[in-house]
Amino acid sequence: MRNIKLTIEYDGTHLNGWQEQSGKTRTVQKIICQALKKIIHEDVTLIGSGRTDAGVHALGQVAHFKTTAKLAVERFTNALNAHLSDDISIVKSQEVSLDFHAQYSPRSKVYRYTIMNRWSRSAVHAKTAWHYPYAINVGLMKKEAHGLVGKKDFKAFQATDHKRVDTGTTRNMKDIRILKKGDLIVIELEADGFLYKMVRNIVGTLAEVGSGKLPPGSVKKILKSKNRQLASPTAPALGLCLLRVNY
Amino acid sequence: MRNIKLTIEYDGTHLNGWQEQSGKTRTVQKIICQALKKIIHEDVTLIGSGRTDAGVHALGQVAHFKTTAKLAVERFTNALNAHLSDDISIVKSQEVSLDFHAQYSPRSKVYRYTIMNRWSRSAVHAKTAWHYPYAINVGLMKKEAHGLVGKKDFKAFQATDHKRVDTGTTRNMKDIRILKKGDLIVIELEADGFLYKMVRNIVGTLAEVGSGKLPPGSVKKILKSKNRQLASPTAPALGLCLLRVNY
Repeated sequence: MRNIKLTIEYDGTHLNGWQEQSGKTRTVQKIICQALKKIIHEDVTLIGSGRTDAGVHALGQVAHFKTTAKLAVERFTNALNAHLSDDISIVKSQEVSLDFHAQYSPRSKVYRYTIMNRWSRSAVHAKTAWHYPYAINVGLMKKEAHGLVGKKDFKAFQATDHKRVDTGTTRNMKDIRILKKGDLIVIELEADGFLYKMVRNIVGTLAEVGSGKLPPGSVKKILKSKNRQLASPTAPALGLCLLRVNY
Repeated sequence: MRNIKLTIEYDGTHLNGWQEQSGKTRTVQKIICQALKKIIHEDVTLIGSGRTDAGVHALGQVAHFKTTAKLAVERFTNALNAHLSDDISIVKSQEVSLDFHAQYSPRSKVYRYTIMNRWSRSAVHAKTAWHYPYAINVGLMKKEAHGLVGKKDFKAFQATDHKRVDTGTTRNMKDIRILKKGDLIVIELEADGFLYKMVRNIVGTLAEVGSGKLPPGSVKKILKSKNRQLASPTAPALGLCLLRVNY
């Protein structure tokens, strides 16, 4: 038995996220499994580092599967890319030890969220950045984000429609970096794990503080409240990208 | 009579370039003119800073048109964006002096060309970067590009299928900046003007020197020869983006 680790890129615009929900057909997991079946004629179980929602992109999603196929590991990349649609690609394939587990082994994950902060909508960034037309003070946003770094209970930023009581709601936010590149605001968040919709709920709240809809100090207050109702609306999926998973 | 300057963004993937050729329908010029007609009920002549080919993107294309319409200038941005398809957007609208001419007034233009330099294809950058699978030595590329800076006769890098003898083939290349960002190589070129397909011919040649297909010093030799046959194949349109036009 061999264990194969895949690093995967996808443009989530026309995908129904990582994993099969109810009858939705274009999920990354399903499309890769179908391509693998054509190559190694096996029904494998492909385990991702975590689900990503419909519309979310990835530059470095990681998944693993076990197989008895004899195909040289480096050949999986080309063989899969030949069978996958343009919006999914395999960056690399590696043979790893049998105890490597894409979902349980990560030390940390890095997400990037992009905001297009100008009055007019963008054609080039239409599918990869959230168009937020009200001027954001990035300095204010950075100061606010600082209050989220460290080991905290992020319950207030967890989606109310998905309660993962099994792993609790405390996560270690290792770093939040915020960069302004022209009209784009790029927010990178690294943590040992993320709750469901946590990044998008944090970004929605940071944008409202940055644009003056919420007063400074709101993030700390919301965090302390553990009440999702106090946080701002969830930022849209299209601005989110899973950058990398560190093992 | 008023003169309106538009700054325009477009994702060129599904567009037939800036200007109407023969019966092709989705050109940026035509789409914007049709939208203008709905707003000000006039057939305007929209003059761009220059044509861009099918598949080429723009973050800062500039165009102007003359009108007697009374609409407040800032309202053109929103009104046009409401009528344009998602892949074209107006970044800003400004009223300028009557002698401003988008095509004849530029001091310089800046183009960006993006190469995805890794073995496997990219899903996220599939429509905005040229996939070049052979390892490029960026240091070698930079050294080679240095030979193109200054006032030079770029005849060897002009497309043979479009001879613009009217303006000659000498251009002043003000700067070439080459940056490596992960697997991406980003080349920014600024000149007082560009010959037809000049950027893509230069990039095609730089990539071949960088990857060892052509020996170092080739760019200078090709430039001196004034012979298009010696330069490398044209890099594909999808990697090219008109970044800005300086007036």
